[in-house]
Parts: sequence; structure tokens; C-alpha cells
Amino acid sequence: MFGITVRDHLMVAHSLRGAVFGPAQRLHGATFVVDATFRRRELDAHGVVVDLGAAAELLHAVLADLTYRNLDDEPDLAGVNTTTEVLARLVADRLADRVHAGALGPLPLDGIAVTLHESHVASATYERSG
Amino acid sequence: MFGITVRDHLMVAHSLRGAVFGPAQRLHGATFVVDATFRRRELDAHGVVVDLGAAAELLHAVLADLTYRNLDDEPDLAGVNTTTEVLARLVADRLADRVHAGALGPLPLDGIAVTLHESHVASATYERSG
Amino acid sequence: MFGITVRDHLMVAHSLRGAVFGPAQRLHGATFVVDATFRRRELDAHGVVVDLGAAAELLHAVLADLTYRNLDDEPDLAGVNTTTEVLARLVADRLADRVHAGALGPLPLDGIAVTLHESHVASATYERSG
Amino acid sequence: MFGITVRDHLMVAHSLRGAVFGPAQRLHGATFVVDATFRRRELDAHGVVVDLGAAAELLHAVLADLTYRNLDDEPDLAGVNTTTEVLARLVADRLADRVHAGALGPLPLDGIAVTLHESHVASATYERSG
Amino acid sequence: MFGITVRDHLMVAHSLRGAVFGPAQRLHGATFVVDATFRRRELDAHGVVVDLGAAAELLHAVLADLTYRNLDDEPDLAGVNTTTEVLARLVADRLADRVHAGALGPLPLDGIAVTLHESHVASATYERSG
Amino acid sequence: MFGITVRDHLMVAHSLRGAVFGPAQRLHGATFVVDATFRRRELDAHGVVVDLGAAAELLHAVLADLTYRNLDDEPDLAGVNTTTEVLARLVADRLADRVHAGALGPLPLDGIAVTLHESHVASATYERSG
Repeated sequence: MFGITVRDHLMVAHSLRGAVFGPAQRLHGATFVVDATFRRRELDAHGVVVDLGAAAELLHAVLADLTYRNLDDEPDLAGVNTTTEVLARLVADRLADRVHAGALGPLPLDGIAVTLHESHVASATYERSG
Repeated sequence: MFGITVRDHLMVAHSLRGAVFGPAQRLHGATFVVDATFRRRELDAHGVVVDLGAAAELLHAVLADLTYRNLDDEPDLAGVNTTTEVLARLVADRLADRVHAGALGPLPLDGIAVTLHESHVASATYERSG
Repeated sequence: MFGITVRDHLMVAHSLRGAVFGPAQRLHGATFVVDATFRRRELDAHGVVVDLGAAAELLHAVLADLTYRNLDDEPDLAGVNTTTEVLARLVADRLADRVHAGALGPLPLDGIAVTLHESHVASATYERSG
Repeated sequence: MFGITVRDHLMVAHSLRGAVFGPAQRLHGATFVVDATFRRRELDAHGVVVDLGAAAELLHAVLADLTYRNLDDEPDLAGVNTTTEVLARLVADRLADRVHAGALGPLPLDGIAVTLHESHVASATYERSG
Repeated sequence: MFGITVRDHLMVAHSLRGAVFGPAQRLHGATFVVDATFRRRELDAHGVVVDLGAAAELLHAVLADLTYRNLDDEPDLAGVNTTTEVLARLVADRLADRVHAGALGPLPLDGIAVTLHESHVASATYERSG
Repeated sequence: MFGITVRDHLMVAHSLRGAVFGPAQRLHGATFVVDATFRRRELDAHGVVVDLGAAAELLHAVLADLTYRNLDDEPDLAGVNTTTEVLARLVADRLADRVHAGALGPLPLDGIAVTLHESHVASATYERSG
């Protein structure tokens, strides 16, 4: 199995709902350094999983819809507890939607994984089919 | 599949038994930077795998029983060759024991992985069921 | 010259004032991974610049007053443009105030430096006398 | 499942064939920071996956055949598009060949994974059986 | 003193002249992960050293003239031994030229530093006046 | 001013004397990831501060005298409190002694700095003349 990983980041404000979150129930914020991995069992005719530049642009485009925002005010995310896990799935699903629409070419992927690093000591990952 | 990872560290003295270990047969020591990953197929009602703060405290508690010690003198580890692999399994098993006892709430995990980085160029990982 | 550095982090919401900041004028947020360096020309009688554990606790205490907050709403910061540079100076100055009050013992420092990493590709540093 | 990972690097010139590669069609170069992971379900009698020092030497020997070269001129690689993915597979396969020849002892591995980091924002991985 | 640092990278082929360089006398290549630091004693009216986005674009523009090339064939570099140190100075000097031409606004800088990381174990830095 | 930095590591057991050290008064251990920086105002005729390979070998040789040992039992260190700061100075001074003896060629250095990273959240640095 092959995989390529590209890194980018987003910076958001948000608050979390639930006593378990303690002080993170207050409006605060985070930089998420994002690693997106695209997996395929075989390489294409050029010897790549997908074009690395196109993958980086795709990740940047998906993150551009989220960054420099207060997620509590985003209509798309109304009622969503925007934990790191939930955001990792959101980014992975949006990447998959665009891949299915052809953003990285005609070949199907065998998997997508997204890791959001919220600090030097904590991260969350979501892995899904391609 | 979701995962969250928390990082902490421990600092120990020990020696390894077996000619294969060369100079590491002498009493020496290591900082192990520890990444513990908790995996679950589904998120809980709050949108998390487990509470991140509780996971960090759990890891810290497990490492507190090992750190600032000479592992060669620990009764619990008598007869154990405390390689990085063995310590990764020990930390993972102790985390699992506490998870089974309810330290992170009632929901079962689908997996635990522990990586010990012993330097900038070497690490060991142990993955187990939750 | 000796220095010791301890790392911690804070997570805040804020917005920046000025057209130069583009989308960062919107309410958003950041994780700042913070490196605080304490410098002294000579070591103390124990062979340290300052006690490492005390330095880590001091940094944690200073960051605790800022983290998990919307800086736009903090009375202490009213009218302050909370750029990464300004926050680096704020953290350094608050560390210095507590050092002068004896938080790290009686010996004076020769310098304090604080770096705030706002992502994997950007950081700001402020260096001052001890 | 256990794994140990060792890190080393190689520095090469090469060019990539295919319009998709844009400016990387020109002769250019890369440092690849290489993480090689060796996996086994059980530890050996010494409590290790394989000897860490032997694993590091094996990786260094495999990389020594590639580093400080223009890959476009290597007879072994004639007609090969030396993408990061292809090189990850090449390194993994050469490690496996030497493991099968006994370089890390008599016990079979359950898997080998090789990651080549080509920058702070991009990497490729190849995973195979042991 | 304040500083802000932005990170980017370049990927080049080159060879080094002199027996001291051993195998690096052959045509090979490198990824240089580049940290550029801009220093000023005082912040501007917005509370920044320079605009971070503009600084990142400036670094990217300077690196764009070098990346994806064989430095041995660049007319600008004819007769230059393109060691990591020499390239660090080249990048710093080109940044300074553009800063003097107004790329980051009217205020003078108090210093520029450029670090090129050529691997996970080696880097070179050049520091100059602003 | 130019600088080159090489990275290596050492693994030792030791204990620290003084109530301030708390649990670190017990015999424990550490991995120190070591960055050694060699500074010179001007480059030599080859365009380098010093030969990078020679600098890496020099650091490795200096660390070889310390690694895989219990520092409490080293005759050279009898009566020395082997804090991270003290070890940083020891490594820097031993590097300087060998540089003065010609290990990196005839040209004098303008400075040496050594940083010992004892974990992902703590390090100590010592800077001296060349």
C-alpha cells in the first residue's frame, strides 16, 4: 500500500459544548496543523499515488472554507460540536467528496486519513475509505 | 476509525541483557517521549473518542509509576529486559487495564497504540486491542 | 552564557485590527506553542540556571491567565492588537515580573526570550533583559 | 503488533518525466529523510523486534547505494520515474531482500514500511509484507 | 528585540568543488527547509515586525528563483561553490535587497537571519544586518 | 555571522544532588539530543564554516566518551552535578579543546554553542567563544 501525505494548517475560534470540556466550553481557538494522507494500492502510470501539487492544492482549498473563522457562527456547522475528531472527519469527508468529483484524476483511492495536530502534545485522526 | 494521541515523557535508568545490545548492556538511561493513541470506530455523544484531558492524565499517571527510576531495581520488572519494545507494551497494557477499569468512561475502545521515541532517530511501537 | 528552555502552549480566540491582516481581521483563533528561555551567565550552586520544574510551573501559570479565552474580551488587553509579537512580549514581561518577585529564587537572570509558534511555518520571538 | 523505526537520510539529484510534474521535470534534487519500520507480531528472546543497531546499519547500507548521486544516471534505475513513492518502494524492497538474506537474523518479519519525507510538508510511504 | 520567522523550502541539484566534500563532489541534490527571521527593535503601528503574510510571500519569491533547478547550470551562480552556508547568505542577501527596495514597507529592519536545514541532522545559518 | 549545526545524541544514567531536584535525586536517566553549532564570521576558501562531515564526526567522538554510561560512576565527573546545563558546557568545552587542537582545521572559530534537548519540552544551551 502506498500513501502520500501533505501538510497545511487552519486557525479557528470555537467553543465546545459539554461539561467534560471544562475551560474549553469558553470561546477560545486553535491552530490545527493538518496532515492529509491519500492511499492507493497501486501507483498510476506516472509512478505516483496522486499528483502531490494537486493534493496540496486540494487540501488548501478544503481548509480555506474553514480557516480564519469562528466555527460557532458557521451555518454549515450549526449544532455540530467542533471537536478535533469531528473536524478531522469533516476535512476527510470533504476531501473524499472532491476526490470523487475528480479533483485528483480518474483513479479511485483506497483510503484517506486526516490528522489534526492541535498542539505539540495532542492530535486526532480520522481514517476512511477512498 | 478515529484516534486521539497524547504525548508525555519518562526518564529512566536501565541496562539491557544480551551481547546483542553491545554498550547498552552497561547501566545507562533514556528519555522516552511517549505517544499514546486511543482508537474507537465511533465518537461518543460529545463528539470525542475519549476526553482528551482525561487521556493525558491517564498517560501521565501510568508514566509516573516508571519515571525517575532505575528500572533494573524495580520489583515489578524483575527479570524483564526493559527494551523500548517491552516498555511500549507495558505502557499500553497498563493503559488498557485502567481503561477497562473505567478510567476513560464506560465505552469500550477499539485499539490502543503506544510509541516510545528513544531519540530523534529511533522509536518502538506496540499496538493492541482496546 | 547558559539558557534553559521550557515548552508549553495556549489556545485562544482573537481578531486583529488593521486591513493588513486580511482574513485575520475576522474572529478566529490560534494554538501558540510557547518556548520560554531563561538565561544566566553563571550557574547557581546546584549547577542550574534556574530549577527546570519551577520554570515550567511558572510558564504554565502565566499561560493559564490567557488560555481558553477570547482575547478580544479580556479587560487586561482592551485596546491591544494581540499579534503574535505582542503576545510574545506580554508573556516575557509577565515572566520577568514574577522572576523579579522571586518566583525562581533570589539570583537575577541575564535575559528572557519567548517564542510563540503559531503554526508549523510561522513564529514570533521577543527577547529582553532578565 | 510491534514495530521499531529507524531514521536516516539520502541526498540525490533527479528529474521526473511527465507534464504533471511541472517544474520538477527539470533536473533538481531532494533530501529524503527516511523512516524505516520493521514489524513483528512477537518479540524475540531478547525482547526486541530486531536489533536496533543492526536495523540502523541495514538502512544506512541500503541508502548508501543511492545517496550523493544523480538518479537519472544510475543504470539500475534506467527508465524508472524516481518519484518519492517509487523510491519508498525501492528502499522497502531492498530492505526486504536483505532481511530475507538474513541481515537481521533468522526470524521472519510481519511487515516493513518506509516513509520518505521530501520536505516539512510532504512525504510518501510504502508498506509491504515482511 | 522582536523577530518573526517564516518557513518554506527549495529543492535543488548541485555538486560541490573540493576534495573535502568527498561524495558530495558528485552531482546530487538537497531539499533545504528554509527559516527566514526578520528582526526589529520596535513593533510598527499595527503591533508587528512586518506583515507575516508579506514576509512569507517574499521568502517564497526569493526561493522561486532557485528551486527545481540544477545550481551548477545557473548563470547567476557561475563559479560559486553552492554550500549550505553560501546559499543561506544568498537567500539572506536577496531578502535584504528586496526589503531595502520596500517589499515589506518603509520601516528598516534591525537584522535578517536565514537557516537552511539540509537534513534532520544538519543546518547552516547566516545572520546579517537588516 | 555564519553557523553550522550538527545533531547527534547520547543516553546516560545519572542522579542529581540537591533537594531542589525532587525525584531526579534518584538514579534515573536521559536521552540528550545534542545540537552543536560552530560559528565563524567568514567562510573558508571552500565556502564553509568547517567541513560538515568532520564536525559531525567530532561531535560523535566527544559524545562517545559519555554515552551508554552511568555518569555517577565516571571518574572524570566525580563531584560534578551532571545537570543538563553542566553537560552542555562539558560538551562545548570538549569540542573547543579538540577544535583548538586542530580537529576542524587551522582556522579559528568565533563561537561554539551546544544545546541538549532532554525531552520534547525542555532543553539547555551553553554558548562560548570559539
